[in-house]
Amino acid sequence: MKILIVNAGSSSLKYQLIDMDNEKTLAKGLVERIGIAGSRLKQTAGDKEHIVEIPMNDHVEASKQMLKALTDDQNGVVKNMDDIGAVGHRVVHGGEDFTKSTLIDDNCIKAIEENSPFAPLHNPANLMGIKATRMVMPNTPMVAVFDTSFHQTMPRKGFLYGLPMDYYKRLKVRRYGFHGTSHRFVSQQAAKLLNKKPEELKIITCHLGNGSSICAVEHGKSVDTSMGMTPLEGVVMGTRSGNVDPASLQFIMKQENLDIDQMLEILNKKSGLHGLSEVSSDMRDIEAAAADGNINAQAALDVLYTGIKKYIGAYAAVMGGVDVVVFTAGIGENSPNTRKAVCEGMEFLGMKLDLEENSKRGGARVISAADSKVKILVVPTDEELVIAQDTLEIVSKLS
Amino acid sequence: MKILIVNAGSSSLKYQLIDMDNEKTLAKGLVERIGIAGSRLKQTAGDKEHIVEIPMNDHVEASKQMLKALTDDQNGVVKNMDDIGAVGHRVVHGGEDFTKSTLIDDNCIKAIEENSPFAPLHNPANLMGIKATRMVMPNTPMVAVFDTSFHQTMPRKGFLYGLPMDYYKRLKVRRYGFHGTSHRFVSQQAAKLLNKKPEELKIITCHLGNGSSICAVEHGKSVDTSMGMTPLEGVVMGTRSGNVDPASLQFIMKQENLDIDQMLEILNKKSGLHGLSEVSSDMRDIEAAAADGNINAQAALDVLYTGIKKYIGAYAAVMGGVDVVVFTAGIGENSPNTRKAVCEGMEFLGMKLDLEENSKRGGARVISAADSKVKILVVPTDEELVIAQDTLEIVSKLS
Repeated sequence: MKILIVNAGSSSLKYQLIDMDNEKTLAKGLVERIGIAGSRLKQTAGDKEHIVEIPMNDHVEASKQMLKALTDDQNGVVKNMDDIGAVGHRVVHGGEDFTKSTLIDDNCIKAIEENSPFAPLHNPANLMGIKATRMVMPNTPMVAVFDTSFHQTMPRKGFLYGLPMDYYKRLKVRRYGFHGTSHRFVSQQAAKLLNKKPEELKIITCHLGNGSSICAVEHGKSVDTSMGMTPLEGVVMGTRSGNVDPASLQFIMKQENLDIDQMLEILNKKSGLHGLSEVSSDMRDIEAAAADGNINAQAALDVLYTGIKKYIGAYAAVMGGVDVVVFTAGIGENSPNTRKAVCEGMEFLGMKLDLEENSKRGGARVISAADSKVKILVVPTDEELVIAQDTLEIVSKLS
Repeated sequence: MKILIVNAGSSSLKYQLIDMDNEKTLAKGLVERIGIAGSRLKQTAGDKEHIVEIPMNDHVEASKQMLKALTDDQNGVVKNMDDIGAVGHRVVHGGEDFTKSTLIDDNCIKAIEENSPFAPLHNPANLMGIKATRMVMPNTPMVAVFDTSFHQTMPRKGFLYGLPMDYYKRLKVRRYGFHGTSHRFVSQQAAKLLNKKPEELKIITCHLGNGSSICAVEHGKSVDTSMGMTPLEGVVMGTRSGNVDPASLQFIMKQENLDIDQMLEILNKKSGLHGLSEVSSDMRDIEAAAADGNINAQAALDVLYTGIKKYIGAYAAVMGGVDVVVFTAGIGENSPNTRKAVCEGMEFLGMKLDLEENSKRGGARVISAADSKVKILVVPTDEELVIAQDTLEIVSKLS
């Protein structure tokens, strides 16, 4: 079966068509500037690049262009829409309503809507994508795959904040966690690589990208994770602050005459590695600047490394030990410096990096020394594949 | 030398007179409701209890009554004011200006004033106490001892938040940490008890009281601590939330129509163990309720235990291991249940509690099993004694 993966933003539509018979990607595309002057679709299929520049006023128009590109005589990869067996949608926030990926129907859409206050930038955009594709592909089954659902196994001591209990019961303020598809995928891949079952292992997965989160995966289940009610909490990220003293918001707002929305805009967009380094939100730029002696860039790196180390120590404490540490996503897969710095001084936990293996490029692999008690792995993440697998599994059960 | 220790609140004055020849407390007192109807002084000296109910409009009046009580013919402990060699003041926030305890002069007072925005409830009150006692004891040398100064050894990676660097440089937003006198005292006492020098040890000190903070003391120096720019950050406390997703403030403020001051009031006064348990902010009440099957009380305890465990794991990661874990303050000294729950599952770090020793009452002592790699200790804290010792050391050097 060929499955289309859709990740809709407020003015964009990222898509990928995967042939699940061999898990190969047939085409990848991005529609940008939806509803803005300069709308544009760019699709890559093998060595064929296809660009369409045409006004697209909404996600329905964008979805039509996406299907047109996928079925294009010259640049397409399928004959017609019926060759697409199902659509898998990435949805950011499933709240407490979704503990796993779910067939999309009106109830599902309603629940995603109800969780929009938790992810006001993401859920409404994801819904636009869902509604638009349902309109242009009315007979194709669709599945919603949530960033949060893997973490719904967290126990109360993992997800409750020290807030009035009423805020949890009435407003559902709690830790939800994100990057669930990634933490699930790389923890399972890590177990496979080690010829173990996830149920036998205590794994700490470090998804380090432009957004970063760490997860404690005990016996296959998420028991704690660094992102919180929103993706702002946790380690320092590209432009997001991560953890701060909640009272510092009040202090900064008064000193700078900001309202809470302006404050959050700064915490989400102007902080993190970007804000600390005053160089860039891109790890490569920051590493280069630090190597050139830029003190703020070095400080940004040190804050990141320390933050990751602290979560690894904390999650070992949560699980009563750790067997495997996995690095994934842009930084986790591609920055040997970060992995080295994070593993330094962690011998007390039984972590011992093989510096040569660490410095090599490659796919999923072990980078710990042969005598390291804790196995350290790099596992490239593939969130689209997870979405496709979940979608296949669910639609296969439809009679 | 007899040294008077003063801890001034906005409407209170807590004091203690210590004879430094033998470090014995001669008298303890509390003036309450300063500037409010029903002002009252209560002093205990040995078995003599002395109560004065008289209007006290300000801290000057309160200081006069304090001196009158200390020198009272019947209930006092000294003949006259000149018998008091020096005064040590507890000051909450020294910002980056104070790396150690300091003789109080006009510059010192100015710097404490300048740091008031970081501790708007505490520093101005501390200053009222300082100014009032200086007025009534103009010839007595006085020393300021800061909650923050012990933590000024934290490296940048320990004290920087993932905020724009400009907020640190211009506004001095950073982690400061508190309970410094306590972390310093109990870490030194722990080393003494183990016949080691602090310089040889990696110690994690858990000050668990109505306010709680954890500190990583590496070779005698604070390298990280759980409280932040203010005492709100860190583990869940009596009424303080500890860590929350910073974005949850925005969400709650919108849902509940609160401004940032109201939000912080809730995070400081209505949250924490009190808010979660909906029972009390007092550990004894919560433990009793949990034992009776109260689910929220048990949740509050579980969140506290998990939070402490995570900091112990995190600080072991920061220091590259841990040799000693110390419990102190109200909960740390008096709740064997808390110590037991925190140490459970921490064998991977080399922590092994002696359950029988843990259940006993007593002073400073080792409560880990004989074969525990990490020594676990209870060390009663004594912040007043530290203030007195610092004061003595500084005034002894005056010509």
